[in-house]
Amino acid sequence: MTIRTRCSFELPAWIEPFLGDWTVPLATVSQRMQLAVALSEENVRRQTGGPFAAVVINETTDELVAAGVNIVTTAGLSVVHAEIVALSLAQTALNGWNLADAGTLQLVSTCEPCAMCFGAVPWSGVKSLVCGAGKRDAEAAGFDEGDKPHDWVSSLQRRGIVVQCGVLSEHAADVLVRYRKSGGMIYNAD
Amino acid sequence: MTIRTRCSFELPAWIEPFLGDWTVPLATVSQRMQLAVALSEENVRRQTGGPFAAVVINETTDELVAAGVNIVTTAGLSVVHAEIVALSLAQTALNGWNLADAGTLQLVSTCEPCAMCFGAVPWSGVKSLVCGAGKRDAEAAGFDEGDKPHDWVSSLQRRGIVVQCGVLSEHAADVLVRYRKSGGMIYNAD
Repeated sequence: MTIRTRCSFELPAWIEPFLGDWTVPLATVSQRMQLAVALSEENVRRQTGGPFAAVVINETTDELVAAGVNIVTTAGLSVVHAEIVALSLAQTALNGWNLADAGTLQLVSTCEPCAMCFGAVPWSGVKSLVCGAGKRDAEAAGFDEGDKPHDWVSSLQRRGIVVQCGVLSEHAADVLVRYRKSGGMIYNAD
Repeated sequence: MTIRTRCSFELPAWIEPFLGDWTVPLATVSQRMQLAVALSEENVRRQTGGPFAAVVINETTDELVAAGVNIVTTAGLSVVHAEIVALSLAQTALNGWNLADAGTLQLVSTCEPCAMCFGAVPWSGVKSLVCGAGKRDAEAAGFDEGDKPHDWVSSLQRRGIVVQCGVLSEHAADVLVRYRKSGGMIYNAD
């Protein structure tokens, strides 16, 4: 039996220079979301993946720890939603699976998490989650968000994770609508 | 802002020779689970990760498509549960995010999925899920399984995924118990 033993994924090449040119500070959740939404737009414009992006921010220093965009179709891996990419790259940068060891880290995502990403948040060690668009916006654009517990926000809160939804939600949702209108691939397995 | 742009993970080196020596056929769910349980035991014995393993099987040919073990602590990534590793390596082997394109594939896991892995199953394109130990076994060993919808089995079934729980459950649960007794690391973020 010969099998594959190694898996890897990579951010699109445009992201590093894009971040290098970014001048807006990351002091407020709106400013952080502004960066995430800009990344999601650029990911669509460059055709490097789906209309979702996320960033991990150090809440103490306001520094960007990691960025992620949805690269499911381009990486050929169903798990590489923006949140999973950002969390995994943050853990790669900080050299450990538990981001709580590195201070107070925040995950800022352009969309409410799908069932998988909801489950991934507590395992990562982030202390807060900020979302832009809602499940309805993602579903209106044709994406399947999966089945989360109905009380998913309080589930995270019970685990000590602060949740803030609806930040720049219109901007974030607009990227989803435009992706759908442009004929972007909707990659639900069936 | 300098960030990490690439993430990778790798199976422990012992897995390829271990699979090379494996002679039990993979025709039934019990035989497939037998392999998964053996991988979870060996992962504990070699101290290369947590007491969980999973395999992806082609149900038409009975061939092993991919294997995964929990490598959270050794890879330093919170998402690399056994199921995520096996699904991602299957997609790497088959060169695409949707395993449904490659036939009728089955995910066989030594334990009921946690909240994240539950959410990941429908995105992967597998047609069935076979589990060994239950949530209670994992929690009894100290692991946090997260909050899944109460009707998680019917949630998967509604999406056309066949679910079979409790296969060789005593063997699978025994690995969890022994891991706990041996003082194995319980890696819940807090």
